[in-house]
Amino acid sequence: MSKFGERRIIEDRLIEIVERAANRSGRKSRPLKLGIGDDAALFLPKPSHETILTCDWFLEGIHFLLDKHPADAIGWKCLARALSDVAAMGGQPACFLLSLALPKKLIDRWLKGFIGGLTRAARKFHCPLAGGDMTRRADTLINVTVVGEIAAGQAALRSGASPGDVIFVSGRLGLAELGLQLLRSQRTTKSGNSKDSWLQKHLYPEPRLHLGQSLTEKHLVTAMMDLSDGLSSDLTRLCSASRVGARIATEKLPTAQIAGLKALLPKFDQLDIALHGGDDYELLFTVPRNKSRKIPKSFQGVPLTEVGEITSQRKLLLVDSNGKERPLIAEGWDPFSHVRKRSTKK
Amino acid sequence: MSKFGERRIIEDRLIEIVERAANRSGRKSRPLKLGIGDDAALFLPKPSHETILTCDWFLEGIHFLLDKHPADAIGWKCLARALSDVAAMGGQPACFLLSLALPKKLIDRWLKGFIGGLTRAARKFHCPLAGGDMTRRADTLINVTVVGEIAAGQAALRSGASPGDVIFVSGRLGLAELGLQLLRSQRTTKSGNSKDSWLQKHLYPEPRLHLGQSLTEKHLVTAMMDLSDGLSSDLTRLCSASRVGARIATEKLPTAQIAGLKALLPKFDQLDIALHGGDDYELLFTVPRNKSRKIPKSFQGVPLTEVGEITSQRKLLLVDSNGKERPLIAEGWDPFSHVRKRSTKK
Repeated sequence: MSKFGERRIIEDRLIEIVERAANRSGRKSRPLKLGIGDDAALFLPKPSHETILTCDWFLEGIHFLLDKHPADAIGWKCLARALSDVAAMGGQPACFLLSLALPKKLIDRWLKGFIGGLTRAARKFHCPLAGGDMTRRADTLINVTVVGEIAAGQAALRSGASPGDVIFVSGRLGLAELGLQLLRSQRTTKSGNSKDSWLQKHLYPEPRLHLGQSLTEKHLVTAMMDLSDGLSSDLTRLCSASRVGARIATEKLPTAQIAGLKALLPKFDQLDIALHGGDDYELLFTVPRNKSRKIPKSFQGVPLTEVGEITSQRKLLLVDSNGKERPLIAEGWDPFSHVRKRSTKK
Repeated sequence: MSKFGERRIIEDRLIEIVERAANRSGRKSRPLKLGIGDDAALFLPKPSHETILTCDWFLEGIHFLLDKHPADAIGWKCLARALSDVAAMGGQPACFLLSLALPKKLIDRWLKGFIGGLTRAARKFHCPLAGGDMTRRADTLINVTVVGEIAAGQAALRSGASPGDVIFVSGRLGLAELGLQLLRSQRTTKSGNSKDSWLQKHLYPEPRLHLGQSLTEKHLVTAMMDLSDGLSSDLTRLCSASRVGARIATEKLPTAQIAGLKALLPKFDQLDIALHGGDDYELLFTVPRNKSRKIPKSFQGVPLTEVGEITSQRKLLLVDSNGKERPLIAEGWDPFSHVRKRSTKK
């Protein structure tokens, strides 16, 4: 009886924490007819809108390290990165489902931190927790399904780029990778309070939802996706879906400008990290040449940079300031190796 | 380069297999605007319908055993059990997302078997694969999100039961648990070809979608849920959501009638298994007394059995044929222990 009683207490505690989180995540502000506590959640879709569906693994040892990443950041990031897929379609978040498996020892303090970060992200991005599935396991496993909405026919796809289109990226590329390397090098603590922009970018990425919505509403983009695995890998996917190639001007790339970087991480190269670093959750998009001047230099403080153009020749090329070309090879995050392959240097 | 090349081949192979599966799962027959291959899937909801959202873990070592369960059955069951939640609301399936993490050694033969079972279930229940997330990991992890639809306001909830309502269950209770015990006792092989009804029920459960739809369309039920963790646990949840109690007549319970059961599994008790066995994926529903005669004895070959009544006193009681009462304690599947607690015998 005592073992059984203990189990019930653990389960009740978890459900209580998650239900409270659901309420704190702004559930009542959205068209959720039913949240946690029944067989399924019920959601009232907007008329004349399509539903956007995306799910993302966030697994201990692959996507985060329990001894390096603050619980609060794990909670924030597991939702933020799934929301980045909604941003990439130009959509608005509607709600999300959380599947969580975790060891008993994490159910108290760690879970509070996790739920704290998760609910902050849910409120900030207007995406309430609608339901989920919980179980206990030796390692910590997270899966997030995000539901979004977009006016029918307006979603930005990967497949719409045409030769001559101008390629843009938002933000500065490689900051999140630098943050990861800093965490790994143990020059920083697990506190999660650092104000360093690179660490913030790695721990608390901000999905570019407003930017994605603005670009699609104004019909400015022909193709769009988010940068999750590094520009070299993600541009390869966009070009493959659109059956085109691309030329990227290396000197135009918005690399991370960090004073003292060489001293901190002597082995890292800014261009290399900008091309192949993952987890930036910025947007990569293509714009017809005759509309490209309508793209502002920045949007809500985030720089928007022209980095190259789409070509009919199905190759990805890097062009340096002297006009010298070399192939751009997809060397970003690979879900089947769990490592980032270092690029071969020039 | 060779290692990188190998990784690309593995990834390409997996995506190819899953994309083919998506096409074979009946994708084109449903309002899926976009499936696998973009940042997210796009789905066109039916006007005047609510969207049903549910997600389910299906994890190696907790929900299935790689050395006991055929890959085909794992593929079938991970979708069927999530669809059971849609059945429990009275809804129709629309599409699903698959998150899969698996070791490299399973990518060939095992994955083919898994995808085979998964696509058979997807076609049978008209629920095409819309997207997902894949990664490699030492152990096999599955998470399925199912999206369903139901006419606005018609969903059957757990919370609607009132004192005096008659309690029904579909099917015979405990068959799936017997199947699991048989698999565990190693009296059967991993072939998955057995025609034993208990093994079939454990390996290839059928979500009661048509029954759920019929009951809600005819406005016959006040509350409904699926039986996934055992009657004792699930009835506790229904009563808790409805703020009521229940009396169950033991002699009315549709136990598994298996000739020679005692010889095969001498330790198991039919009543015990009917009350506490999990994985049946039958429906538990309550019907106002004045409508209970409208419930047929069976529906599409599945028996529907009156097993008790809802009470205002918030207790769960078992009543034997002599009118003797004893408490019914929730002792089914507990996600925080991963075992079924044996009930204390009478």
